[in-house]
Amino acid sequence: MSTVICVGIATLDYIYAVPALPTEGAKYRASALAVLGGGIAANASVAVARLGGDASLYTRLGDDIAGDAIRAELGDEGVDVAASLPLGGRRSPVSAIMVDRAGERMIVSYSDPDMPAEPDWLPDFLPADADAVLGDTRWEAGALKLFRLARAAGIPAILDGDRKADPDLVSAASHAVFSEVGLREQTGVDDLEKALLGLDTGANWLAVTAGARGVVTCRHGRVGHVPAFAVDVVDTLGAGDVWHGAFALALAEGQGEDEAIRFASAAAAIKCTRFGGRKGAPSRAETETFLKERTS
Amino acid sequence: MSTVICVGIATLDYIYAVPALPTEGAKYRASALAVLGGGIAANASVAVARLGGDASLYTRLGDDIAGDAIRAELGDEGVDVAASLPLGGRRSPVSAIMVDRAGERMIVSYSDPDMPAEPDWLPDFLPADADAVLGDTRWEAGALKLFRLARAAGIPAILDGDRKADPDLVSAASHAVFSEVGLREQTGVDDLEKALLGLDTGANWLAVTAGARGVVTCRHGRVGHVPAFAVDVVDTLGAGDVWHGAFALALAEGQGEDEAIRFASAAAAIKCTRFGGRKGAPSRAETETFLKERTS
Repeated sequence: MSTVICVGIATLDYIYAVPALPTEGAKYRASALAVLGGGIAANASVAVARLGGDASLYTRLGDDIAGDAIRAELGDEGVDVAASLPLGGRRSPVSAIMVDRAGERMIVSYSDPDMPAEPDWLPDFLPADADAVLGDTRWEAGALKLFRLARAAGIPAILDGDRKADPDLVSAASHAVFSEVGLREQTGVDDLEKALLGLDTGANWLAVTAGARGVVTCRHGRVGHVPAFAVDVVDTLGAGDVWHGAFALALAEGQGEDEAIRFASAAAAIKCTRFGGRKGAPSRAETETFLKERTS
Repeated sequence: MSTVICVGIATLDYIYAVPALPTEGAKYRASALAVLGGGIAANASVAVARLGGDASLYTRLGDDIAGDAIRAELGDEGVDVAASLPLGGRRSPVSAIMVDRAGERMIVSYSDPDMPAEPDWLPDFLPADADAVLGDTRWEAGALKLFRLARAAGIPAILDGDRKADPDLVSAASHAVFSEVGLREQTGVDDLEKALLGLDTGANWLAVTAGARGVVTCRHGRVGHVPAFAVDVVDTLGAGDVWHGAFALALAEGQGEDEAIRFASAAAAIKCTRFGGRKGAPSRAETETFLKERTS
């Protein structure tokens, strides 16, 4: 079994179903409520575990009920969070997400501004069985430390660039995969291919996920394209995170980038057909069946 | 020590401080978060305990982390919640409250629609030391059952009529104290005195709290008025609930209605001068000092 170490954010999301999104200072009643773990790195770690990988998560949690719930839910998913101990006096990240009948979302999120940035509690040596490291932009100092350890160990370090990242973190990644928004924030360039070419220093592999339009890649000045799978989309919440988890696992297993993209795109496509955020992340068997069906 | 039994809602409120209230489907970041117990009957029970009374709360909670947090916080306040056991498979009431810099509030609340209405788990006999019962409109069948037991035992049954209530519940109360909104919803009459006179059947004592304008009372066709105390208002969240808790405790102690109104208005006034919802409810000594200062 391949091991992926994830580093970044884990949240507890309170998802309120409302007839219409709130618009002003008044009282609104929700018809349904779901309390679900979320967060980029945490969602990716769940995807890795469901796809048959060994997943560990390094994340900063507070000593509160949200932190306890986050840890318990990840543990139930088979993610190792043993090292992510509650930080005394700190508050875990939580969000209130209001979803209307058309699926439109209003997200109010809180992260403790006093959460320590220093990654001194992260290990100074990667576990011997680590096959890849995946990091998000929500704790850049933590991701940077583990990316450098990964590169020194000769294993892939994958950045989920969902928003503008520290340039040092982008350089430290062996594979930097941006969202469209993230790539535009990073480069100031609208055209995705030009943006990737502008970032390309030859030091690492770059890509941008463009939803239904597939993935654009760039390595040593050469641009590539891998199409997406067409599915009936029900819920995209967490789909990008599932994509990055699956991509990291595929690289950890020794798959090539184009093959890893297809695997990740299949996992994310299945997730999009199911309601409930990361609860819709697929198993390995489901993903392989999907890939066979779509390839034949 | 006098004993007040409270019956109604207890919630867990996630209070997000935001620069401006959300207006559309987008992402918003909160600068601060407070996670506090709330709910009408629960807030009133805390006020009773802080004012030196013996407070019990009968409330319907789910078997979730919010329910655990609600029970723990009430226990820390000295409220007896031993009978309010978690209901299997049910979800506790929670709210997301967004507060902007001007103090304006957007409240999104959820109550489990499958929470059992039947009050069969409530006691069929009041504890021998019960001196008053206080109920809200959030669990009318529960309040109705305990109001009838209170009337049979010859002790006051106080309704917090913050919104339209079952007419049977209003009749069952020895003292029905409405908010302005609640009285208008109940009667369809704008003028507060006329609304009270229209409700008056001679069977019980009626009143409406009108904020800074004081309290209007009505008994046997006679209307009275007790002025409010002027204070610099910082936060009104929970002030009405504190008022009702203090009023119920004063009646439980044998104070007359006008005296009880002054006591309750003093406790609520002090609460309004402090931030943090029911965390600002005063002690007995603070309330008595306030009353002395304002009377001399």
